Amino acid sequence: MIREKIEQAFAILQEKNVDLWLIFGRESHTTHEPCADLVVGAAYTWQSAFILTRTGRSIAIVGNLDEAEFRKRGEYDTVIAYKGGIREDLRRVLSELDPQQIAINYSLDDPTADGLTHGLYLLLLQLLEGTPYAGRLIPAESVIAALRGRKSAEELRRIRHAIRETEDLYAAVDEYLRPGLTEREVHEWLLDRAREKGYETAWAVEHCPAVFTGVPEAGEAHTGPTHKKIERGHVLNMDFGLKISDYCSDLQRTWYVLREGETAAPPEVEKGFRAVVDAIAKAAAFVRPGVEGWKVDDVARQHIVSCGFDEYPHALGHQVGRSAHDGAGLFCPRWERYGNLPYLPVEEGQVYTIEPRVHIAGYGVATVEEIIVVTRDGGRFLSSFQREIWLVH
Amino acid sequence: MIREKIEQAFAILQEKNVDLWLIFGRESHTTHEPCADLVVGAAYTWQSAFILTRTGRSIAIVGNLDEAEFRKRGEYDTVIAYKGGIREDLRRVLSELDPQQIAINYSLDDPTADGLTHGLYLLLLQLLEGTPYAGRLIPAESVIAALRGRKSAEELRRIRHAIRETEDLYAAVDEYLRPGLTEREVHEWLLDRAREKGYETAWAVEHCPAVFTGVPEAGEAHTGPTHKKIERGHVLNMDFGLKISDYCSDLQRTWYVLREGETAAPPEVEKGFRAVVDAIAKAAAFVRPGVEGWKVDDVARQHIVSCGFDEYPHALGHQVGRSAHDGAGLFCPRWERYGNLPYLPVEEGQVYTIEPRVHIAGYGVATVEEIIVVTRDGGRFLSSFQREIWLVH
Repeated sequence: MIREKIEQAFAILQEKNVDLWLIFGRESHTTHEPCADLVVGAAYTWQSAFILTRTGRSIAIVGNLDEAEFRKRGEYDTVIAYKGGIREDLRRVLSELDPQQIAINYSLDDPTADGLTHGLYLLLLQLLEGTPYAGRLIPAESVIAALRGRKSAEELRRIRHAIRETEDLYAAVDEYLRPGLTEREVHEWLLDRAREKGYETAWAVEHCPAVFTGVPEAGEAHTGPTHKKIERGHVLNMDFGLKISDYCSDLQRTWYVLREGETAAPPEVEKGFRAVVDAIAKAAAFVRPGVEGWKVDDVARQHIVSCGFDEYPHALGHQVGRSAHDGAGLFCPRWERYGNLPYLPVEEGQVYTIEPRVHIAGYGVATVEEIIVVTRDGGRFLSSFQREIWLVH
Repeated sequence: MIREKIEQAFAILQEKNVDLWLIFGRESHTTHEPCADLVVGAAYTWQSAFILTRTGRSIAIVGNLDEAEFRKRGEYDTVIAYKGGIREDLRRVLSELDPQQIAINYSLDDPTADGLTHGLYLLLLQLLEGTPYAGRLIPAESVIAALRGRKSAEELRRIRHAIRETEDLYAAVDEYLRPGLTEREVHEWLLDRAREKGYETAWAVEHCPAVFTGVPEAGEAHTGPTHKKIERGHVLNMDFGLKISDYCSDLQRTWYVLREGETAAPPEVEKGFRAVVDAIAKAAAFVRPGVEGWKVDDVARQHIVSCGFDEYPHALGHQVGRSAHDGAGLFCPRWERYGNLPYLPVEEGQVYTIEPRVHIAGYGVATVEEIIVVTRDGGRFLSSFQREIWLVH
């Protein structure tokens, strides 16, 4: 997988007209550089430079204690080890390659392209002092967005697998649900099933799965489950994802807990759930390579509002891959906090969630989250679209 | 624990004459901010600001989806939630507090104090544009070094516990070792024992435990174990640590594999092992609050060289805590790559490893790693000092 992404990076550097991409890091166990997952793959300790060029060169400069590991892995054609300091080797390699642009990992808007810490940035400037290279640094965000976003066949296979396993656990918890259970009990039960299978969660276990039953008392999506009990007449939703073989799923499902004598959800619950489902269908049908992300969000957002509900206080969808939130682009509104992300065009091979939500007064929150892959012809569902609300008897 | 460290931070801000410490982050699951482990404790998604002041104020500004979680936890006196962007709330809070210094998380030399990414630094400058506060940013590294380094009684208790459990597993693997096992088999066996107890490793499982038998063929400490077999006449060493209740151990132990007819290690092996043990004893006896880290390294380094061995190609010791490599200060030589770290004074309450090594020609590598806490009167061992080489029969 690492070498596959390195080869993909070479092609992207050509496409973007960037001579050299430099990942500069240290103590990978302390500070997580998201790009290291894609094209480094092993731990490193001292200041380390991973260099990929548009001409297809791959060079790792690492501390002497890490040398053997990188040689053994063999994903970098050249491995250079140092003892006292990285300066000399780094300057020599750069002057041999003499790149006109050096892309480094910072981005105002995309956290997955912003792995270079500010201290390391300042250190890099010091190391390059007196060379022309300090003046040739550019952000690598467009290279990283392409590399992370455009999934290979193997990456898609792994994401599909994580989705399938999550759907199986949703089917299992559907059997388990009953009035009287607390949010926390449901959370623990689902987590135990995941652990039995040896799976990691796609985000922090404290709120994976998130479980919400009934009308929210305070706050929103990212809270851990509470001791609140499932009651008849509740709308209940969960947000759950698994990380399997390094790739994630992220799916939400909604139930209605039938009251005595009911055989279906009441019309106002149906109406809310329908608004969510139709918003997803409309957004998925609208997705196409080249369209800006905010326009996809807008299709769903307008639909929700036109049905008489408040707009959801978040983006419609994010990419999924090595992380549950897998970087730029994004199906998000043009709010300040999203910076330039709303304007990035959708690309073939990207995998997105679609996850609108509505508050149904007196019942709770309906929210469904599906996952699509962008093909040449538009969005294709990777998950089994929940088109009907599930019932707890 | 979080509130305990927040209170400690208030006192350190007073001591260091810093008005305000700002942790600015986002997507905590993608980019790991090491200081968040100490004084935030929960996940956050959108741009978030965690503010501690020398007057004892604690303010969290987070996205609306994270608000409920931070209110529930109650560790921050004030929790402010936003939807569109953080700018307005951040500027208002700063202008109310009007700090003369705003310490932010970057450091050229200490990775654990360098959690602010370069993109977020640039974004912070944008957010503060037109206020006096962009001009009042200073690095928080001295605040962080004190906060992370000076362990509380509870932190020491947890580190001791991780050390004890690691020592128990070393005792167990001592029974298991025999000629013919491969490095990888020993690695897997020890890892299985740790997993049975439900423990995480202190660093990446690929090389935790690291296992080295005989004369190294290529490379050094940070390699994963290979299919090389333990043979009679080998010196064998392991490097292993556990993370239990968020705190780490990190210990190395050395064995000699007896040849037919031997009842003890040969004199040249004894000599190498003795050089390591005596270097540790000398360094531990030399440690005192106020002494610069490089001088501790130098005591051990000079001893190793005076015994006729090559100096070890790394630092003598690092701090241990939430991470196995727990930030500044360091017992390290005055090499370029360590920047200002060699000159930081040792402080009471810090916990350090001491880990010299020697190559014993024809046999392998002898290395022992112990852990000490710095008291007013000097270093006190937290681990059970391995003073004799262990024998495999």
